[in-house]
Amino acid sequence: MLLPDRARVPFVSVENMARLVHSIGLPLALEELAACIEADFLRWDEFDKTPRLASHSVDGVIELMPISDRRHYAFKYVNGHPVNQRRGLQTVVAFGVLSDVASGYPLLMAEMTLLTALRTAAMSAVATRALARKDARVLALIGNGAQAEFQAIALQTICGIERVRLYDIDPAATRKAAGNLRAAGLSVTECRTAHDAIEGADIVTTCTADKKYATILSDNMIGAGIHVNAIGGDCPGKTELHRDILLRSDVFVEFPEQTRIEGEIQQMPEDFPVTELWRVLSGRRPGRVSDQQITLFDGVGFAIEDFSALRYVYDRMQGTDFFDRLDLLADPDDPRDLYGMWRRFGTG
Amino acid sequence: MLLPDRARVPFVSVENMARLVHSIGLPLALEELAACIEADFLRWDEFDKTPRLASHSVDGVIELMPISDRRHYAFKYVNGHPVNQRRGLQTVVAFGVLSDVASGYPLLMAEMTLLTALRTAAMSAVATRALARKDARVLALIGNGAQAEFQAIALQTICGIERVRLYDIDPAATRKAAGNLRAAGLSVTECRTAHDAIEGADIVTTCTADKKYATILSDNMIGAGIHVNAIGGDCPGKTELHRDILLRSDVFVEFPEQTRIEGEIQQMPEDFPVTELWRVLSGRRPGRVSDQQITLFDGVGFAIEDFSALRYVYDRMQGTDFFDRLDLLADPDDPRDLYGMWRRFGTG
Repeated sequence: MLLPDRARVPFVSVENMARLVHSIGLPLALEELAACIEADFLRWDEFDKTPRLASHSVDGVIELMPISDRRHYAFKYVNGHPVNQRRGLQTVVAFGVLSDVASGYPLLMAEMTLLTALRTAAMSAVATRALARKDARVLALIGNGAQAEFQAIALQTICGIERVRLYDIDPAATRKAAGNLRAAGLSVTECRTAHDAIEGADIVTTCTADKKYATILSDNMIGAGIHVNAIGGDCPGKTELHRDILLRSDVFVEFPEQTRIEGEIQQMPEDFPVTELWRVLSGRRPGRVSDQQITLFDGVGFAIEDFSALRYVYDRMQGTDFFDRLDLLADPDDPRDLYGMWRRFGTG
Repeated sequence: MLLPDRARVPFVSVENMARLVHSIGLPLALEELAACIEADFLRWDEFDKTPRLASHSVDGVIELMPISDRRHYAFKYVNGHPVNQRRGLQTVVAFGVLSDVASGYPLLMAEMTLLTALRTAAMSAVATRALARKDARVLALIGNGAQAEFQAIALQTICGIERVRLYDIDPAATRKAAGNLRAAGLSVTECRTAHDAIEGADIVTTCTADKKYATILSDNMIGAGIHVNAIGGDCPGKTELHRDILLRSDVFVEFPEQTRIEGEIQQMPEDFPVTELWRVLSGRRPGRVSDQQITLFDGVGFAIEDFSALRYVYDRMQGTDFFDRLDLLADPDDPRDLYGMWRRFGTG
């Protein structure tokens, strides 16, 4: 659907995104977002999928992630600059655009730093619902940075998690997450080591931020029946798990072409067997087949999730005042008289 | 240079772009823009050049055009939907972003429908100044749509054109352009055929809009000594010149990898000889070598030109009020407490 004044593009700012999610309620927003992502994953073949377009520099990367189906086109701009933290800047900032394929007109421009945290959490929950044991109640959350609370609350809302065991190399981060998650109604244990954190956990989610090969989880830490969401290893050279864990797990991925470059499985040979999550969601491939199995979602964040998130925001903002309108597109009365349009701005 | 409040991204709307150009004056803006483009073309090898990323659909195309040097990154979003005209929409709308490579933060978001018309005109003038006879005074302008006036005024300002001969298949377009260009101080002749328009012309610029193989100029129309700017053939399947003209001309292009797909030379074999314009501008290759030679600039619009234009606007807007600030990037006080930032928006 195109809004009436198509040259003035709806814009959802950071403040409006936050207020929109408050107005819906975070749990419901995460649930609805998970439903959107799952629905879009179920029509996987309808998407025109391309790898992200990355521009690397000494200090980081700037990426464009475009994707489209026959009706909508979306892209996200996102950077990754670990050095920014030392400068008082965000490591990652993002914004995105949703467009109408038929006309090429943008329908929505939105902040996507907050929205990406939401969709990443919703994605983990979609994977966890499909892959974890149904009786899973205890989550170990390794890495307690910007993503942590959203991950925990999505698993609380969508997968019935009741208890969270937190660990971060920085105790201040753990303290911050603990405070936020207790307020959200979770039973929280602050742990001093990763080993301690995974004690009794049914689900382990790693979302650390270091841009390097790291071993956040070593092989002996992951026991039978556990589901792992490995979220933090999301670019070349950045992994979190010891490769032996991968060898003992059944590994599920979003888009193998991208995950083999960016995910945990970049440590493995190119023919390392993985299952595309959409095939599990659509019933074409089995997910968890026994309570002893280790399932591992190697999540790197795929463009369809951003597409789903932008479409969700676009639908949900209709009838609200949680957006402004940007005078982004020139709209001369006579399309051939752009010059005349320009001239008239000089006489006002 | 980063502005103080880096999370609030400067935004130049259509109205502010128009007002900024009025405040500078169109001739000076075109001259300065041409100087920026020429300066960037002279440091060609410093750019990380990639072909545009196109998403084709039944009715049109949506493209992302990214480019960067070591300091700045830019991309343009642009569509092409010829069917839009029938719907009262623009055929082409565009916007762009300039970013700081070191931090990945956007520095500027800007409308680029008007700005693209300006940079395309400035580009033609850069090519014409390098390739046309120095005594050229008469321009034939075939295609009198949205680009036409900007093309003519850039050649008037930068190349000393005094007289313009206009032709369009739609006489209303010619009438519109004639009125605008007379007001700009040019001597204008409205012509009824393309043949008539090129009579006595030193420079021929074609900027028609049809998305198809067309023969706007046939071989016998282009005589010795003429310089041609072929601007309108800018996508696969869209050309304006009979191929025999190409065989008699020396052809100059922006980025051969792109022009061989999108430009007039898509009609020619892959090894058809062309000269990169930046090599002429930098004195490495000859441009015009005789008054009898036909020179042809096969312009398709390359990402460096958008990069130059965005950098120009960014520099020129400093100290003015011709921009707003968009609350585009989440900026929590503690970068790891995105959730806390979100929560605080609920208490306001």
